[in-house]
Amino acid sequence: MPDKGELNRQRIVAAANKLFYQRGYNQTSFTDVADAARIPRGNFYYYFKTKDDILAAVVDYRIEMITAMLAQWDAEIAAPRVRLQRFIAMVRNSGKELARFGCPMGSLNIELGKAQPALKAKARKMFDLFRDWLAAQFKLLGHPDAKELALHLLGRAQGLAVITQVYADTGFLNTELDQLEAWLDKYV
Amino acid sequence: MPDKGELNRQRIVAAANKLFYQRGYNQTSFTDVADAARIPRGNFYYYFKTKDDILAAVVDYRIEMITAMLAQWDAEIAAPRVRLQRFIAMVRNSGKELARFGCPMGSLNIELGKAQPALKAKARKMFDLFRDWLAAQFKLLGHPDAKELALHLLGRAQGLAVITQVYADTGFLNTELDQLEAWLDKYV
Repeated sequence: MPDKGELNRQRIVAAANKLFYQRGYNQTSFTDVADAARIPRGNFYYYFKTKDDILAAVVDYRIEMITAMLAQWDAEIAAPRVRLQRFIAMVRNSGKELARFGCPMGSLNIELGKAQPALKAKARKMFDLFRDWLAAQFKLLGHPDAKELALHLLGRAQGLAVITQVYADTGFLNTELDQLEAWLDKYV
Repeated sequence: MPDKGELNRQRIVAAANKLFYQRGYNQTSFTDVADAARIPRGNFYYYFKTKDDILAAVVDYRIEMITAMLAQWDAEIAAPRVRLQRFIAMVRNSGKELARFGCPMGSLNIELGKAQPALKAKARKMFDLFRDWLAAQFKLLGHPDAKELALHLLGRAQGLAVITQVYADTGFLNTELDQLEAWLDKYV
């Protein structure tokens, strides 16, 4: 069972994860995170010395979540075709959040990619996870250009996320995801 | 001929435009803009009272640039098919900047879309311009679903911009733009 210190740490990471997504990393202050986690500023420094440290923990947390999700899909779904469809379904199920705040991993990478290269290198690992998992499925289906197909699918999903956020409209998202499923049908 | 005040104002907008693109809006301070434009802080307030005012001027400036570019394409290129190809060529020509800083209008919208709705509503107008111009071309080609096709093309381009920035790689961009040209060929 995690001790109190570990529980506090988890509470901070969960609060920061939400704020970084909903406001952006640079728009979230150290104090915002401490307030949202309801940890006094004095105690807070025991867990994290800088906002960059919090970001590293948030990215680790998201990577754990993505890894666990993909492992679950692997365990529950035998056919690579259905696994790829599951990925598209995930995007569809996120419509409301995409329309409001954009893609958590896309928006974080775009934000940090401009002028914070060390932080962006961390955030990119989320993309690597999806890219490699998608490529593994296309490879199982016998496609030598599995990595290109994976990036194509990831890029299409990112583009949909941008337009969905810009126009705060999930109608476009759903029509486009139907088309993306039709694209996928050609490869499975 | 513009007077000195107007020239100073233009210098501020040009400096801010570059900083907002290369660092992000929220990562750029009032002082950063004043320093980059080499305008003393005291004089600066004569031109702009708040950073939000600068953003409004930057968006107006970008909208003018985009409008002028699209008008030039309309004047120089008669065939809607070739105009649409010109749009794709523009994305291709921006590869280096996309890999380094992402798409200027996409990244600004994503950043402001999270928690600054009034500023985002301004920034969205850049998307409207491209969407309407692309839709006009598809309409000239006789497609009743011209608006959907325009958003599809815009979304594909945005997705490419995200992946190109995430992996700082223009190789993927060029391969995907070839595919996007092939997609376009089906509609022209």
